[in-house]
Amino acid sequence: MAKVNKNYKNVSESYLFSNIAKRVNDFSKTNPDKTIIKMGIGDVTKPLAPLVVDAMKKAAAEMGNKETFRGYGPEQGYSFLKEKISDYYKTMGVSIDSDEVFVSDGAKSDVANLTDIFANDNTIIIPDPVYPVYLDSNIMLGRKVVFIDGNKQNGFLPLPYDGLQGDIIYLCSPNNPTGAVYDRDGLKKWVDFANANGAVILYDAAYESFIKDKSLPRSIYEIQGAKECAIELCSLSKTAGFTGTRCGYTIVPKALVREDMSLNAMWFRRQSTKFNGVSYIVQRGAEAVFTPEGQKQNQENIEYYAENAEIIARTLTDLGIWFSGGINSPYVWLKCPGGMSSWEFFDFLLNNAAVVGTPGSGFGKCGEGYFRLTAFNTRENTIEAMDRIKRLLTKK
Amino acid sequence: MAKVNKNYKNVSESYLFSNIAKRVNDFSKTNPDKTIIKMGIGDVTKPLAPLVVDAMKKAAAEMGNKETFRGYGPEQGYSFLKEKISDYYKTMGVSIDSDEVFVSDGAKSDVANLTDIFANDNTIIIPDPVYPVYLDSNIMLGRKVVFIDGNKQNGFLPLPYDGLQGDIIYLCSPNNPTGAVYDRDGLKKWVDFANANGAVILYDAAYESFIKDKSLPRSIYEIQGAKECAIELCSLSKTAGFTGTRCGYTIVPKALVREDMSLNAMWFRRQSTKFNGVSYIVQRGAEAVFTPEGQKQNQENIEYYAENAEIIARTLTDLGIWFSGGINSPYVWLKCPGGMSSWEFFDFLLNNAAVVGTPGSGFGKCGEGYFRLTAFNTRENTIEAMDRIKRLLTKK
Repeated sequence: MAKVNKNYKNVSESYLFSNIAKRVNDFSKTNPDKTIIKMGIGDVTKPLAPLVVDAMKKAAAEMGNKETFRGYGPEQGYSFLKEKISDYYKTMGVSIDSDEVFVSDGAKSDVANLTDIFANDNTIIIPDPVYPVYLDSNIMLGRKVVFIDGNKQNGFLPLPYDGLQGDIIYLCSPNNPTGAVYDRDGLKKWVDFANANGAVILYDAAYESFIKDKSLPRSIYEIQGAKECAIELCSLSKTAGFTGTRCGYTIVPKALVREDMSLNAMWFRRQSTKFNGVSYIVQRGAEAVFTPEGQKQNQENIEYYAENAEIIARTLTDLGIWFSGGINSPYVWLKCPGGMSSWEFFDFLLNNAAVVGTPGSGFGKCGEGYFRLTAFNTRENTIEAMDRIKRLLTKK
Repeated sequence: MAKVNKNYKNVSESYLFSNIAKRVNDFSKTNPDKTIIKMGIGDVTKPLAPLVVDAMKKAAAEMGNKETFRGYGPEQGYSFLKEKISDYYKTMGVSIDSDEVFVSDGAKSDVANLTDIFANDNTIIIPDPVYPVYLDSNIMLGRKVVFIDGNKQNGFLPLPYDGLQGDIIYLCSPNNPTGAVYDRDGLKKWVDFANANGAVILYDAAYESFIKDKSLPRSIYEIQGAKECAIELCSLSKTAGFTGTRCGYTIVPKALVREDMSLNAMWFRRQSTKFNGVSYIVQRGAEAVFTPEGQKQNQENIEYYAENAEIIARTLTDLGIWFSGGINSPYVWLKCPGGMSSWEFFDFLLNNAAVVGTPGSGFGKCGEGYFRLTAFNTRENTIEAMDRIKRLLTKK
């Protein structure tokens, strides 16, 4: 009799987004005249840069031509892309060999699949609030999870504390959902903790391109000692609008060894056996992202979203509402005004301003009383939504 | 201290293809005048059909336009493609709901990742010789594996035998590497065995489109009772030349339940958490494959390879060499002449005819003394290689 993986029973179904959709739908029905603005979306809205589109069209054409057709590629990605990514790291002052780069179909797949190369009797350190994939992919393996609390006091940037014990640490900076960004000191504390304890950090840098402040690290490898303890995941999803195009990359340094086994060699083996590489067409699109002209075209999109985030941040500052993120991040994480719970504020905002956000409680218990707004809507809608919020919250 | 997954130590490194490459390289150096023909390649050589290329160019253009841009898609694939795949099954007389279809980046990823939804204390039944991914992905989890032997007597189509015990069964038909195809009776025996024992069959149908004989099943769901015990994996890699474009699909029937858990729901959950869907551009290309015109364009490619396989099969028949495959399959699996071992025949063929194939021993102990030729080279090279083999083996 085939036995199923019963840990799946312990993965809680998230009703967060379906619950949001239902409430929005109900409101829409009873208020057909109101224009709803969705400020909760985690997806990009701006199209791919022209250079990226051209590269993919050209690659598609190559695939239709006998002379230029490509079959199976290397599971770890084509050299033309891995070298571009390696060069990209140089712009942060970080030296990464191209065979430390693993091209993937996105950071979500890799951060979840990286669980494969670790034993199940590790203790996992996960921040709360959190992007659910870190948690769920470990619950699916029955692993012990220890939460570290983010809160207003630590600016949603929890640090290792005396007595903290754990083997694998998930960090995301700039953070989803809180928008908070670790500075060098903060990251150094985690790197030192990991090296002192033989722990491994899985560092999700999916939003690194939103960091404008030069003093903040965009890669964990800017911190001394990180190559001995950290795997970094990155994605073109937000950087270059690849949410539907699908490409990311993971850095596994050759210096990262545990129990005499090279994690680089293990991940190479994992991907060789369980993955067959990213579409050639998509990899050519990704390559274009890393050209000077591609960087320029994408930078315009990032600037656009960053200005939206600033508009949100400015509004909240004017209103005297505490928040993290908004700068160096596409996310703004605010304390619900008037002591409202996350869902109370959700309903309040929907019913009185027709603005939709994401209740912070959907990201963990420490998210209760908080609310996430995102910078991915249009400029016009962002301005209009902030006007509505301002009018609503300054009403006597 | 982070603990690694020590099962990785038990995955044997395959030196099969690097060993082949080395010997070919050495021969090439000492025989610069000889033209080597590679008849061992498992990759396609013909370009994508024009309709597929056009669909991908159009999709890339859509991604560059604000009005038609697509962000995150459904992890399980777009409806436009899932419905086409559901319709494709109707041509085999099989009814598959579109929510039993999971679009993936290829059968290799899915067949390896499907291990996730099963417990580790299952016994795995794997045929020998075998495509290495089935074995390695289970060794990585420390699972107990039982081999069922393929041989000349059973035509490399092993069947369940009295006393066979196991919970998860890997079958591939048409088979890689042996080219052998189960008939309805054979598959029925496996389906009955699985249902009698509560086992689950993972059925790799990656080469189904090569089946021309209408009496042979192209899908396991043509066999009564299969929806209660089988997951089917398929790929556009060989069907439509997608080895570098990357798209496949997996069918998990809703009727497939073990220990009160729906495997369809479990795989849905696994993919939602650990995968983010296939590129929109690639899915549009895949959709084109399933249009009547796309099917026609691809059928021409399949015919081309199928005729190559026939040429190989005819040559071996003329030479009195035993083989499986060659019909309804792109692979030909032959008994090395003169009692040679797989590597002896490899060297004999390389040194005397400058033809390269794949030693059967690289696929498992039962492959010793056998040799794989493939139909994926050009017509001209296939004919030339067969002429050389004929001359070599009829020499006194």
